Amino acid sequence: MAATNSEPLTIERWQRRHLLGLQDLQRDEIELILDHAAEFKKLQQSRVKLDHLRGVVVANLFFEPSTRTRTSFSLAAKRLGADTVDFTASGSSVSKGETFIDTALTIEAMGVDLVVIRHSSPGAPEMLSRHVKCGILNAGDGTHEHPTQGLLDAFTMREKLGSFEGKTVTLVGDIKHSRVARSNIWALTKLGAKVIVCGPATLIPPGVERLGVTVAHRFDDVLQESDAINLLRVQFERQRGAFFPSIAEYAHLFGMNGDRLRRAKPNVLILAPGPINRGVEITPDVADGPNSQILQQVSNGLFVRMACLHLLARRQQQLQEAR
Amino acid sequence: MAATNSEPLTIERWQRRHLLGLQDLQRDEIELILDHAAEFKKLQQSRVKLDHLRGVVVANLFFEPSTRTRTSFSLAAKRLGADTVDFTASGSSVSKGETFIDTALTIEAMGVDLVVIRHSSPGAPEMLSRHVKCGILNAGDGTHEHPTQGLLDAFTMREKLGSFEGKTVTLVGDIKHSRVARSNIWALTKLGAKVIVCGPATLIPPGVERLGVTVAHRFDDVLQESDAINLLRVQFERQRGAFFPSIAEYAHLFGMNGDRLRRAKPNVLILAPGPINRGVEITPDVADGPNSQILQQVSNGLFVRMACLHLLARRQQQLQEAR
Amino acid sequence: MAATNSEPLTIERWQRRHLLGLQDLQRDEIELILDHAAEFKKLQQSRVKLDHLRGVVVANLFFEPSTRTRTSFSLAAKRLGADTVDFTASGSSVSKGETFIDTALTIEAMGVDLVVIRHSSPGAPEMLSRHVKCGILNAGDGTHEHPTQGLLDAFTMREKLGSFEGKTVTLVGDIKHSRVARSNIWALTKLGAKVIVCGPATLIPPGVERLGVTVAHRFDDVLQESDAINLLRVQFERQRGAFFPSIAEYAHLFGMNGDRLRRAKPNVLILAPGPINRGVEITPDVADGPNSQILQQVSNGLFVRMACLHLLARRQQQLQEAR
Repeated sequence: MAATNSEPLTIERWQRRHLLGLQDLQRDEIELILDHAAEFKKLQQSRVKLDHLRGVVVANLFFEPSTRTRTSFSLAAKRLGADTVDFTASGSSVSKGETFIDTALTIEAMGVDLVVIRHSSPGAPEMLSRHVKCGILNAGDGTHEHPTQGLLDAFTMREKLGSFEGKTVTLVGDIKHSRVARSNIWALTKLGAKVIVCGPATLIPPGVERLGVTVAHRFDDVLQESDAINLLRVQFERQRGAFFPSIAEYAHLFGMNGDRLRRAKPNVLILAPGPINRGVEITPDVADGPNSQILQQVSNGLFVRMACLHLLARRQQQLQEAR
Repeated sequence: MAATNSEPLTIERWQRRHLLGLQDLQRDEIELILDHAAEFKKLQQSRVKLDHLRGVVVANLFFEPSTRTRTSFSLAAKRLGADTVDFTASGSSVSKGETFIDTALTIEAMGVDLVVIRHSSPGAPEMLSRHVKCGILNAGDGTHEHPTQGLLDAFTMREKLGSFEGKTVTLVGDIKHSRVARSNIWALTKLGAKVIVCGPATLIPPGVERLGVTVAHRFDDVLQESDAINLLRVQFERQRGAFFPSIAEYAHLFGMNGDRLRRAKPNVLILAPGPINRGVEITPDVADGPNSQILQQVSNGLFVRMACLHLLARRQQQLQEAR
Repeated sequence: MAATNSEPLTIERWQRRHLLGLQDLQRDEIELILDHAAEFKKLQQSRVKLDHLRGVVVANLFFEPSTRTRTSFSLAAKRLGADTVDFTASGSSVSKGETFIDTALTIEAMGVDLVVIRHSSPGAPEMLSRHVKCGILNAGDGTHEHPTQGLLDAFTMREKLGSFEGKTVTLVGDIKHSRVARSNIWALTKLGAKVIVCGPATLIPPGVERLGVTVAHRFDDVLQESDAINLLRVQFERQRGAFFPSIAEYAHLFGMNGDRLRRAKPNVLILAPGPINRGVEITPDVADGPNSQILQQVSNGLFVRMACLHLLARRQQQLQEAR
């Protein structure tokens, strides 16, 4: 779906209707999003109210609870002048027995242009995209992808590292169940980074090497070569099986702490998709220290989502005019 | 309350403060709303942001769960530039023992101009209208009325049928407990349609003929003469008694399916106030087929609500200036 | 933190970043807020949409349920053109184990300028203010303060009384657990009123006289000298112990009713922070009668909150430009 000739991709030439996952995107598409986000970051410093999405309606359709992602998308839309509506699964038509697709078609019929969807089922956004004409942005679908998280992590690293050429990024934790890991892997490998995934054997999906990543089971083995470390969340609320013996052992083997930081590269970037469990994936001194990118990730998330919303809204407008 | 002289009703001459039910409205008032909605439909095709309600505050006061009606009203208000606030019964002052009227007076005191209310008690919006100065829009009150649903159903039929003269509309299902049926009956009979209500004897209110409708107990008896068929929702979440033996039997006797569609008029309009129960009131092939107006109803609902909000907001402004 | 030279305080010279409690404010700061609120009240009569907060983002962070305060803040922000986002404790990151401060830092990182916070712990807003750069407005923190309620009560009294010099205001009820009482005491004593606190001995905090108030245990003793009476809410949902024998006895001893009103000054102002318990703190005839200021309090609350939001937003802008 990406532009096929050799001209560089520009906002005007963006042709994708949906953002379902980073696996689908070409490198130039990812770079365009990051560049466009950087423009919004500059514009927002003057705190001027923008109107790129004036007249556009964005619906948040969250079937899983979320504060930060939903709020970030909602703010991104509002700051660009869009009208927004929120749907939550509870108290909605879904509880009256309506099907998922009927809910989406209904939302679309109300004149919604873009649907931001979070769902516990991998592939739900993609299924939706086949039934509606409005643009779909995946805000996390089960263990599949969380593309805007992958993009904001990449944005944050790129801003500090300059480029990914010759750089090593290590993802630590539960690689197997993490949509954040998956979206990070797609983005970072396409952008040219060396990606290491590191976690207990039970939490590394077999065959992950085929995605172009290196596997490590001991954090300390890969600590020193890492330019950026992304500490995945231990999802206590999802964890059903017993993939590691205890929290204390996890923190000991895979947690980021002051001792490990001292042994890492001096300017190593420490990322973590929040909400963080202080003392588990990361100790407070590191989370609040100078290497931590945690709050920058949140800030950048706004700009990345502004960029994604704007690109898809422009594409919607083109398609609507063509109809 | 309607204009009493012989000049035609116009937006400027609209005098009603509230929209409580279609029983109260004159034919010319209903037609004005539908005409005004048609204007908004035309305007929205260009997706320009309108500002008819700039400076107006609309409060959604929903004491029953609802996604589609609440969202439709909320979007209608936002697309006209209003400020909106949402109230829900849970977590509100109501749970601190405040009376219903005190809640409404409080909302009004905050500078709200229009209150959209859904409540399980028939007459709750009317009671409210006697205590507040702001405009009240009934978004469904128990088994009484759901006027904007009646209006959007009438709008959708009129758009396709051109006029109701000589046309037959059949309402199928639980006539007795349906506020949608009631509002449809008032609108359609006033607009000149022949209205048939069709359902099991247990679900037809005794004496309904006095409203000017024809009663049928067998769907197949009235199928062929119908120009439009409105399939009421089987409200599993409300149904307390056992008004029909089984879902399968209901679907067999009163459900719309491919076989019945083949025996109906070729251009028969199939309507259903969502959310639909696929396979109960309507089979998927009919719901998704060319005769189905289900998604058009949703789209038109937005325009009808824009029209109602605009007419009542204008009236509020006149009254506020006169004070 | 207030201006220290002798020039009169103006909007331009306002220097406070947060509104944590009225204990902190100087008399001229309180008066500036009330004067600024009066300006907004005048402006709102023309129902023009204002844009004082265009480009500003206001987050509502409510850890306790609240309809009226949250809605009032939200409307105040929207009517000044701000973008608003709502956070509630349930379904948020808080339920994923995130700390309170991390939640606030995250909200700030999203580009939020002002945080309106309600929390059950006294001091939570103050703690927040030490960790974030954005402005904090306390919307009620446990039994500590509820500054905008104190300000709107003072605004309502001042508007009718003209000045507090030589005037007596009586606060009736549970002084001990009431943040409203505390904020009223700070505001009214600073503005020059004589303040009487009146309630059963169990509900008067020992040593409250040090705040410059007079204590009474019998309502009838102080009824006749009061120019304004503020009837605190009996908070059935908070009351854990048994501080008074029965509701009937409370109403008899401390409730405002027609008999007491006849014995009071003819123009006595009757205030009550809603939601009211009709028949407990106040009988319906008084609540709905000509002395009652209850709905004026709600209306004025909007203007007071507009004033506070505007002053803090201006200050934020100054600080952001200085960075």
